[in-house]
Amino acid sequence: MIETPYLLFLGDAPDMLAAKVAQGIRDWRPENAVGQYRMAGCKADMKLTDMTLAEAKAAGAKTLVIGVANRGGIISAAWKEVLIAALEEGFDLASGLHNLLRDEPDLREAAERTGQALHDVRVPSVKYPIADGVKRRGKRCLPVGTDCSVGKMYTAMAMDRDMKARGLKSSFRATGQTGILITGEGVPLDAVVADFMAGSIEWLTPDNDDDHWDMIEGQGSLFHVSYSGVTMALVHGGQPDALILCHEPTRDHMRGLPGYKLPSLETLRDMALQLARVGNPACEVVGISVNTQHLDDAAAKACLREIEDRMGLPTVDPYRHGADRLVDALLAME
Amino acid sequence: MIETPYLLFLGDAPDMLAAKVAQGIRDWRPENAVGQYRMAGCKADMKLTDMTLAEAKAAGAKTLVIGVANRGGIISAAWKEVLIAALEEGFDLASGLHNLLRDEPDLREAAERTGQALHDVRVPSVKYPIADGVKRRGKRCLPVGTDCSVGKMYTAMAMDRDMKARGLKSSFRATGQTGILITGEGVPLDAVVADFMAGSIEWLTPDNDDDHWDMIEGQGSLFHVSYSGVTMALVHGGQPDALILCHEPTRDHMRGLPGYKLPSLETLRDMALQLARVGNPACEVVGISVNTQHLDDAAAKACLREIEDRMGLPTVDPYRHGADRLVDALLAME
Repeated sequence: MIETPYLLFLGDAPDMLAAKVAQGIRDWRPENAVGQYRMAGCKADMKLTDMTLAEAKAAGAKTLVIGVANRGGIISAAWKEVLIAALEEGFDLASGLHNLLRDEPDLREAAERTGQALHDVRVPSVKYPIADGVKRRGKRCLPVGTDCSVGKMYTAMAMDRDMKARGLKSSFRATGQTGILITGEGVPLDAVVADFMAGSIEWLTPDNDDDHWDMIEGQGSLFHVSYSGVTMALVHGGQPDALILCHEPTRDHMRGLPGYKLPSLETLRDMALQLARVGNPACEVVGISVNTQHLDDAAAKACLREIEDRMGLPTVDPYRHGADRLVDALLAME
Repeated sequence: MIETPYLLFLGDAPDMLAAKVAQGIRDWRPENAVGQYRMAGCKADMKLTDMTLAEAKAAGAKTLVIGVANRGGIISAAWKEVLIAALEEGFDLASGLHNLLRDEPDLREAAERTGQALHDVRVPSVKYPIADGVKRRGKRCLPVGTDCSVGKMYTAMAMDRDMKARGLKSSFRATGQTGILITGEGVPLDAVVADFMAGSIEWLTPDNDDDHWDMIEGQGSLFHVSYSGVTMALVHGGQPDALILCHEPTRDHMRGLPGYKLPSLETLRDMALQLARVGNPACEVVGISVNTQHLDDAAAKACLREIEDRMGLPTVDPYRHGADRLVDALLAME
């Protein structure tokens, strides 16, 4: 649907977390990212080649993907200049921003004039049903986090990759703009109307073979007051058989909420499991995924060992060390 | 905004629960309901005078309010006939249905032709913010239910009425179409885009006097897999100081979910309190509201006494016996 490969637009990202979308594409579909485009003041770096629009065009890029969150939901004049130039250079644009490319008259005008496409992957393209709670065949795994942005998508992606490498049946189910930009399909859950959230996840993870696993991309956190309702819809709409607890050990408060402490992994385990069992009484917590990107090797190892000893569950950083122990834990359930 | 008084349209409601909107208006603003309009096969009855459109017009009704949920989200041809006749008779139309009056070409055409208004109260009219979790001044009370449709709105309405009768500061905060149709304002929470749910509730219950109580209309249930995400946004966006547990003791499964049992009041208490304390560590469960409409007087009394003894909290049916003990419990917190 979205033409590859991409030039990743990092804009004036204030930090790496703001460029989560670009990072996801770089890490999971590196073959689709020919380079990055950074503006003055950009604090994010994907370690891709910095390219002008013309250089990226010459390198074969077809679509400029907005790989960064915009501040305050405004597509700034500085961004606009680049985006319009990209359309004129022959790129399509793809975006997961809340405010849509198609709602900007100057972008729409430029797209029409140049014949290029505007892809707003955040907009739901399906009329989702109300969830009916009926038990579906096949298996489902859902990562749940102590906070937002702790590695839930990476965990599901890594487990899906590991399952496929073993020749087992698995589907990554995207629920956010990054996942959708990477895989080309999914549910933009945070843009779904409240009443249809759980139903959209039932729709995304339908009946399947008994030995097939959906690896569902997580969103938000049950303990993050801004987004917990979105997470709840995943826990109940997804009917997970297996939960993976996700954590970032260096965070001193909930993302975007100064004064809000992260819950312990024990608290997350008990809360998520009790809620998940409403929809699937057989649900189990099978492993823990720790995002150790801010720790050196020794500290990461020590952190994982401490958590594994304390919680009695396989504990890994799937990005750093692979997801095979988490997949082993899934398969051991059956 | 919506002109009163109303003629309540009950359509072909299959039962009383389907006509919850009409019931709410009849019970809380009876002076606004001059009569009811019922079609063949209607199983709901508000005990108001059955009127033709002409009779209601003569009695002074200004707006035909759709007081019933429609099946399958379709505005049927049979309904259309009445609605268009009402516009031609000089009524405005007001609706809280998911599918909008304004999206029906024939209704829009008739409204334009007759100069009458179409009010779709379900559509958010405000661009809500993302929740920031900052502690707000003033006090907030939220009813939470073991299931949907167990009396959460009635509980908040009754407590608000009791507070005002005592000369105390209180605001009923509507979060659903019935509440909005009754009070003329509020947040149509189930139609809000997922990411903005909690923020819409922060917006609805802003900073206020230290001795002011918001009585927030509840929605769904933390244990109802179709709508739990909506409830979660109320628990976290509302920052409640006080929770009221709401229950309907004769329900044998969750509404619309055969096979799903209701949680116990103990389970609801523990879950709701733990979640609410994420946003407001001072939150307490202060009372229990039981909807005893399907019990006779003796059975209702016995049910309330059993629950009160078991739970150690003031337990009432606010509609049947008044909300004063719940309000006493609120005031005792301060």
